Amino acid sequence: MPELRRDPVIDRWVIIATERGKRPSDFGSAQPRKRGGFCPFCYGNESLTPPEILAFRRPGTEPNKPGWLTRVVSNKFPALKIEGELEKVGEGMYDKMSGIGAHEVIIETPEHDATMGTMDKLYVVNTLKAYRERIIDLARDKRFKYVMVFKNYGEAAGASLEHPHSQLIATPIVPKRVLEELHGSQRYFSYKDRCVFCDMVRQELKDEVRLVLTSDNFVVFEAYASRFPFETWLLPRKHMPKYEHMGDDLIEELAEVLQRTIRKLELTLSYPPYNYIIHTAPLREPDDLEYYHWHIEIIPRLTKMAGFEWGTGFYINPTPPEEAAKYLREAEEGKVEEVAAANVH
Amino acid sequence: MPELRRDPVIDRWVIIATERGKRPSDFGSAQPRKRGGFCPFCYGNESLTPPEILAFRRPGTEPNKPGWLTRVVSNKFPALKIEGELEKVGEGMYDKMSGIGAHEVIIETPEHDATMGTMDKLYVVNTLKAYRERIIDLARDKRFKYVMVFKNYGEAAGASLEHPHSQLIATPIVPKRVLEELHGSQRYFSYKDRCVFCDMVRQELKDEVRLVLTSDNFVVFEAYASRFPFETWLLPRKHMPKYEHMGDDLIEELAEVLQRTIRKLELTLSYPPYNYIIHTAPLREPDDLEYYHWHIEIIPRLTKMAGFEWGTGFYINPTPPEEAAKYLREAEEGKVEEVAAANVH
Repeated sequence: MPELRRDPVIDRWVIIATERGKRPSDFGSAQPRKRGGFCPFCYGNESLTPPEILAFRRPGTEPNKPGWLTRVVSNKFPALKIEGELEKVGEGMYDKMSGIGAHEVIIETPEHDATMGTMDKLYVVNTLKAYRERIIDLARDKRFKYVMVFKNYGEAAGASLEHPHSQLIATPIVPKRVLEELHGSQRYFSYKDRCVFCDMVRQELKDEVRLVLTSDNFVVFEAYASRFPFETWLLPRKHMPKYEHMGDDLIEELAEVLQRTIRKLELTLSYPPYNYIIHTAPLREPDDLEYYHWHIEIIPRLTKMAGFEWGTGFYINPTPPEEAAKYLREAEEGKVEEVAAANVH
Repeated sequence: MPELRRDPVIDRWVIIATERGKRPSDFGSAQPRKRGGFCPFCYGNESLTPPEILAFRRPGTEPNKPGWLTRVVSNKFPALKIEGELEKVGEGMYDKMSGIGAHEVIIETPEHDATMGTMDKLYVVNTLKAYRERIIDLARDKRFKYVMVFKNYGEAAGASLEHPHSQLIATPIVPKRVLEELHGSQRYFSYKDRCVFCDMVRQELKDEVRLVLTSDNFVVFEAYASRFPFETWLLPRKHMPKYEHMGDDLIEELAEVLQRTIRKLELTLSYPPYNYIIHTAPLREPDDLEYYHWHIEIIPRLTKMAGFEWGTGFYINPTPPEEAAKYLREAEEGKVEEVAAANVH
């Protein structure tokens, strides 16, 4: 059983995957893994993943057989285990709890070579709906306090399989970064009586210099205090604390906005590795939380300077967000060749 | 002039290096940079770095000429600038300040191919003394609140030059991680009336399972809630809030302990890329701060799962610290071949 351990100084929980137990020799090679033609997420290999939890399928097709469009399964190598009691114990001065949780994979499309910027919009819509359905379902399990939804694209961003997929992890604790955002936005609210994210949306729409794109209900911009080059945030314009409160119409619109944003990053940076993470209010917070506002943070993985930053929480970003925004605003389908050529140097 | 910008939600400052302005094409290649035989840190190239701020030299040798043992110079491409007023201004709802600071490089040894685990101990002693001297000197500049000392070893850890070196950055703000540690350890102190780090030292000496090595005045162990495989912490046994308070005797002993620790990592993990960061009390905190305890955190860069972790502050560590400690305790010079062979698989 994996363990959740708390740092004794700062309020950070870490999953210690006791069963995996990676040994020194497992880290030996820094080379990308060789990948044969085989992919467990492709049509015909459904029996090689755990059975599907949720699937969008063509009419008349059977579960765990081809014919699906988007498919959610448990992670075959989960970081946390779904079975068992949530036990909290001390270990000398330290605190730990049993590694209870859910770890699921959202297989976004049957098309192995698609990217989120190039796949049919239908798959993006399904994927975003799957996130919502799974959060709503997992919230029923009283052991869980948070569902983290994220996507790793590319080896350098931590993806171990090429086939387009996202992941979610349901946890019995609220992750540190989310706690910090809650505290920070609460502090802002108690001072200004306004949501800091609503203020940010207004500020970015007014300043324009960091805007990437807008739609009726969403705004995409480069964060003012971007930690990383091309760090891109996507927010709903109207106050909304939880991702899972979106209706189908809003999800359709979000799919288009997210896809256009990713496409702009793909064109500008030649299919960079990236992570995106959905930041949403914890499951047990009230549905009408005044001071928190869900959003997506997209982080291309372009620099290698991270170690120092990890240790200090102090980032050096070599690309001003205002410049990054200019590139992203201009990136359009017709300009692909041009940008690709520029990257040859 | 670079800018320091504050995240509007959480208390994190970011350096936006406006002058570097990296464009999309600058990130084009993920290949390691080609390195010719030329190294600006080697003997004979002293005129190609900014003039030395501090140097340990062989008797009778001239500044900025060969004959030095360990040498401190300004970073030629500093993230922050030393000249100018510290101006703090608002920008709509956002906060920023001028990017005032110092960014220095500690060239640890003239031997280009040495590592911290294999260089003569003299160089390690000099390096640790140089850290101390520079912190004491920079503290005189009232604009600075913190001096971050760190080392990046290996391309994957962010080192852009091979020649053994460390860096320091003096900043007008206290980095987020240090603030968190201060708050966390203050909370612990107000509850227990003991330093949390002193308690940790006692706990680790008692438990033994995470211990790597000990000396009269230092303890090295794998952190209980390690975020990363082989995350290794080095603490003075006795309460001491600031690194720069060490006398020469203690620094000599630290050099031996740090070098042995790094050597164990080199042997166990075949010269892994790593970062280490000195965590010490901010310059303006009282010298007898009861609740903070300086220490060094060493983080080998073995996994690529970082993107998700960055975004959430939630880490998945595939190697239990108790197992890592076992490998490190056993790693000795004689066993090199054996370990190297194990890594071939």
